[in-house]
Amino acid sequence: MRTLPAQALAPACPRAQGQPASSAALLLNGRGDSEVLARLLAFILAHHGGVSQVDHLLDQETGQSFSRIEWDLAHFDLADDELEPALEEVARCDRGAFRIISSRRPARVAIFVSKQDHCLCDLLLRHRTGELNADIRVVISNHLELKPLVEQFGIAYVYSPITPETQALQEQRQLAILRRHRIELVVLARYMRILGPALVDQFPARIINIHHAFLPAFPGGNPYQRALDRGVKLVGATAHYVTAGLDEGPIIDQGVGRVTHRDSVGDLIARGRDLERVVLAQAVRLHLENRVAVCGNKTVVFG
Amino acid sequence: MRTLPAQALAPACPRAQGQPASSAALLLNGRGDSEVLARLLAFILAHHGGVSQVDHLLDQETGQSFSRIEWDLAHFDLADDELEPALEEVARCDRGAFRIISSRRPARVAIFVSKQDHCLCDLLLRHRTGELNADIRVVISNHLELKPLVEQFGIAYVYSPITPETQALQEQRQLAILRRHRIELVVLARYMRILGPALVDQFPARIINIHHAFLPAFPGGNPYQRALDRGVKLVGATAHYVTAGLDEGPIIDQGVGRVTHRDSVGDLIARGRDLERVVLAQAVRLHLENRVAVCGNKTVVFG
Amino acid sequence: MRTLPAQALAPACPRAQGQPASSAALLLNGRGDSEVLARLLAFILAHHGGVSQVDHLLDQETGQSFSRIEWDLAHFDLADDELEPALEEVARCDRGAFRIISSRRPARVAIFVSKQDHCLCDLLLRHRTGELNADIRVVISNHLELKPLVEQFGIAYVYSPITPETQALQEQRQLAILRRHRIELVVLARYMRILGPALVDQFPARIINIHHAFLPAFPGGNPYQRALDRGVKLVGATAHYVTAGLDEGPIIDQGVGRVTHRDSVGDLIARGRDLERVVLAQAVRLHLENRVAVCGNKTVVFG
Amino acid sequence: MRTLPAQALAPACPRAQGQPASSAALLLNGRGDSEVLARLLAFILAHHGGVSQVDHLLDQETGQSFSRIEWDLAHFDLADDELEPALEEVARCDRGAFRIISSRRPARVAIFVSKQDHCLCDLLLRHRTGELNADIRVVISNHLELKPLVEQFGIAYVYSPITPETQALQEQRQLAILRRHRIELVVLARYMRILGPALVDQFPARIINIHHAFLPAFPGGNPYQRALDRGVKLVGATAHYVTAGLDEGPIIDQGVGRVTHRDSVGDLIARGRDLERVVLAQAVRLHLENRVAVCGNKTVVFG
Repeated sequence: MRTLPAQALAPACPRAQGQPASSAALLLNGRGDSEVLARLLAFILAHHGGVSQVDHLLDQETGQSFSRIEWDLAHFDLADDELEPALEEVARCDRGAFRIISSRRPARVAIFVSKQDHCLCDLLLRHRTGELNADIRVVISNHLELKPLVEQFGIAYVYSPITPETQALQEQRQLAILRRHRIELVVLARYMRILGPALVDQFPARIINIHHAFLPAFPGGNPYQRALDRGVKLVGATAHYVTAGLDEGPIIDQGVGRVTHRDSVGDLIARGRDLERVVLAQAVRLHLENRVAVCGNKTVVFG
Repeated sequence: MRTLPAQALAPACPRAQGQPASSAALLLNGRGDSEVLARLLAFILAHHGGVSQVDHLLDQETGQSFSRIEWDLAHFDLADDELEPALEEVARCDRGAFRIISSRRPARVAIFVSKQDHCLCDLLLRHRTGELNADIRVVISNHLELKPLVEQFGIAYVYSPITPETQALQEQRQLAILRRHRIELVVLARYMRILGPALVDQFPARIINIHHAFLPAFPGGNPYQRALDRGVKLVGATAHYVTAGLDEGPIIDQGVGRVTHRDSVGDLIARGRDLERVVLAQAVRLHLENRVAVCGNKTVVFG
Repeated sequence: MRTLPAQALAPACPRAQGQPASSAALLLNGRGDSEVLARLLAFILAHHGGVSQVDHLLDQETGQSFSRIEWDLAHFDLADDELEPALEEVARCDRGAFRIISSRRPARVAIFVSKQDHCLCDLLLRHRTGELNADIRVVISNHLELKPLVEQFGIAYVYSPITPETQALQEQRQLAILRRHRIELVVLARYMRILGPALVDQFPARIINIHHAFLPAFPGGNPYQRALDRGVKLVGATAHYVTAGLDEGPIIDQGVGRVTHRDSVGDLIARGRDLERVVLAQAVRLHLENRVAVCGNKTVVFG
Repeated sequence: MRTLPAQALAPACPRAQGQPASSAALLLNGRGDSEVLARLLAFILAHHGGVSQVDHLLDQETGQSFSRIEWDLAHFDLADDELEPALEEVARCDRGAFRIISSRRPARVAIFVSKQDHCLCDLLLRHRTGELNADIRVVISNHLELKPLVEQFGIAYVYSPITPETQALQEQRQLAILRRHRIELVVLARYMRILGPALVDQFPARIINIHHAFLPAFPGGNPYQRALDRGVKLVGATAHYVTAGLDEGPIIDQGVGRVTHRDSVGDLIARGRDLERVVLAQAVRLHLENRVAVCGNKTVVFG
């Protein structure tokens, strides 16, 4: 066994091919009319931003509106720190919340794992090939098994064992770590603990979990065994934002795969691994590209 | 509006292309070893049946075995009425149940509907193009709306309105109709009543229902509205055998389709119509080709 | 065989559930910047149109931009005949082409068929349940087989037999029919003749064909037999706009289905029927909702 | 950067869950009748093999028959080296070719790669989790980039650079390596060279390639760019056995994924990576479980 040279796992290409060299995406949650959208477009244009994509939706049920604008930064004449206050000004009357993601500054991400590595490996490999506009700062785990793997990618690994007695304390420590790294997105990549409110409340719509079933079927534990027992012909995976209710948060993406009577629970688990990693990666990518807005307990995904 | 000439809706081609002119399929549910399978193969061969397909599976969990043999009847020297007793002889020691379907005699089928016609139309059109090896004898409905359509296809339509007070009596009448036609398979093509035990008990693994959701998610009523409210990203349809428990019988086939935040409940219903008719037709076809065995509350599908 | 009462096949519900009572959709093809989009939004708002959906895309390769705006007509203060000139004014500097579809006036559609009825039936049934915002004016066929079926739906059927010698003349007659009905969209629902330039040139991006293969694989004739011979594991269907090159026009939608070594060419044809009707209906629906723009030999689909 | 401890990437579980502790699978290609199948079943039973699965198919077109029998070795009283001669005896009159795979001895596999690592990583990770019943002996590459990664998994890496001038010589060397390791299956995991006849002829139906398109669409180079230029709405991947004709060998499995007008060629490549690794892994798994027979230029897959 040789040592893996550092460059072997370094990012192969820093950004996805075919994307503009630098771009920004604004996601805005407002009420009602499209006047704000018109003003924002005019504003971006006035500052020489080349608008490449616009999505806008009025949710008939709630009356909320959602807008996403993506523009090229090549000739844009506002610096990142000037942009937010200016947008606040332009969109003010709308009182809407907005979020900007700029390809100039990848989002800071933390990943939580337990012992299974397929989702973690997948995210790390995608990150390395430049598929994800992220800065993965730290991996936190209640087990030690995946430490060598993570450190091989040059990423910090924090061992944070949890028992019912220590959960509250450990979650405070985890929270401190997330704050120190100014984490913007937490990804639960088959983390087998239920997060307490101390963590969940601090990251509304900023914690993505992968559940190994087609929600709302089979929430909670052992979904593959239960799917086998029920005799379903398709198994699924669901990526969702974490809320206080177990596996009840807004769904971002779902996938399914066909199974047959010949499949054992081990086969379902193997099939599920393929689904889980693709669905989780897709949800993370959508979030990182600022394509996911939350509307009540649902998501608006500008895919 | 003209009268539709009878031939316009008559079967366009009486059998699926590419199939042998006549064939039989045996489905056998036994215990344990494969000795019976070897004996059956030798028996069919000895009677000049050309075996075209064999499937055999030992279910590890229950120890049950399932065998399906399909053979060409062109040179087979046993008549249909000689076959069953002979097979009983050959397979006796196995004490297994078996079922034979011969393309020489299509299975007698009844369809139950309410007001929605998409699954019914689909089955009638598939029947007409020769996709289904069935003799659709009667359509039974608790409404009158679809009577003209059904009669247009030259099929008897029985109006059987049901209230909570009349249900027991009407189901007796329905049972009498099914018996008179010697019905072998009942298809619930979006029939919006729950069948009582009088009917269900008489047709074990012989009543196929289409549920407009991805079971076990959203059993019971209004699944599309509930799917919309939960914000799922895929909607589904499930074909299953009817048992005493609502939407809990063995699943035969399932399908899903992608939906987005832009879809209204009407869009989900429209998307669902496409899924329902394809999934139901597939389950009916599998049953008619003797490809579905029941194993506890699951199915073994030799697809 | 009884006569089918007229109401049996009349539209069951005149519009899709969940849609606004009346809405308009504008599709605009321009160049470059998003200024026109901002102006259009402001204009619609000023006339009390409630914008429900906006999509805009800059095609990096060609520099063309595509915008789609959908708005509620409930309080809109411009009549349909005032709208186009006004929009021409607002968008003028862009010199872009645009197209408006209003739910107040369904598009006039003609369907061409030969002998196979699965795509035709499917479109007529969807039309009847209100899925398609269309006014199907006429069905034109080079055969007589489907005349009774079409007339049953209360739609005119024109028999237009074609031989190599009569093709030019007959296409002039077909063109006259299309003009008389002021047809806006022609759907080739498994029409087994190649249209000549007299027709194709008059309906740029207004003739939708369904090809029974996954283009660019298997263009031309007998695709299912060729798919079987090549041993593919998936068969497909492709809906595209018709251009001068056979099966080479801009693709609108595609679908695939799994096949196995057990499937005969007849099985592939049957599987294909399911794909063809779903893919064609989806393409027609997208076109009727003004969601498809043509960009060179490709489509931009605001799905 | 730390050294990755050897155990970190060692097999996590040596066999798929839910499988019998040890089993064998026989795949036999014969002619015509099912008598041989009956004899083989009786033979395996007589030697106390518990048959868990049987598949048999008569190909109507060629008259060839294909049989697969899987049985439990727990009480089987023949050793591996006694089995082949005995089977030859039993099946002799059929003169058919057969192949046995026993879970007691994983197949010896070589992988060819160039610079892209997604398929290679995927196979190595699946191997490590016990999904593949394989003994990966060597990775051969015309580049050096992936050497550290491969050696990290404890697998030999052979650097074999190729120019048009050296191809013949290098392929002789590669052949020598494959022979020395007694390789039974060669996997081309995005190997960007066309193998010469010296290699191809030695491994009939034993070299699996992944082509990054939905064959027969887009054979040869740059399929993603060509797919983008054609404006397809689905991209695909195809795993096939390698034959003399480029991308023309028997197809084992195919997969597709949806793309839109918003996707750049880089997005298609990224989407394709997900398809390629799943389709290739599935084909390799099917081959390793002895589920793939070749019938002319097609495959019979007992999935």
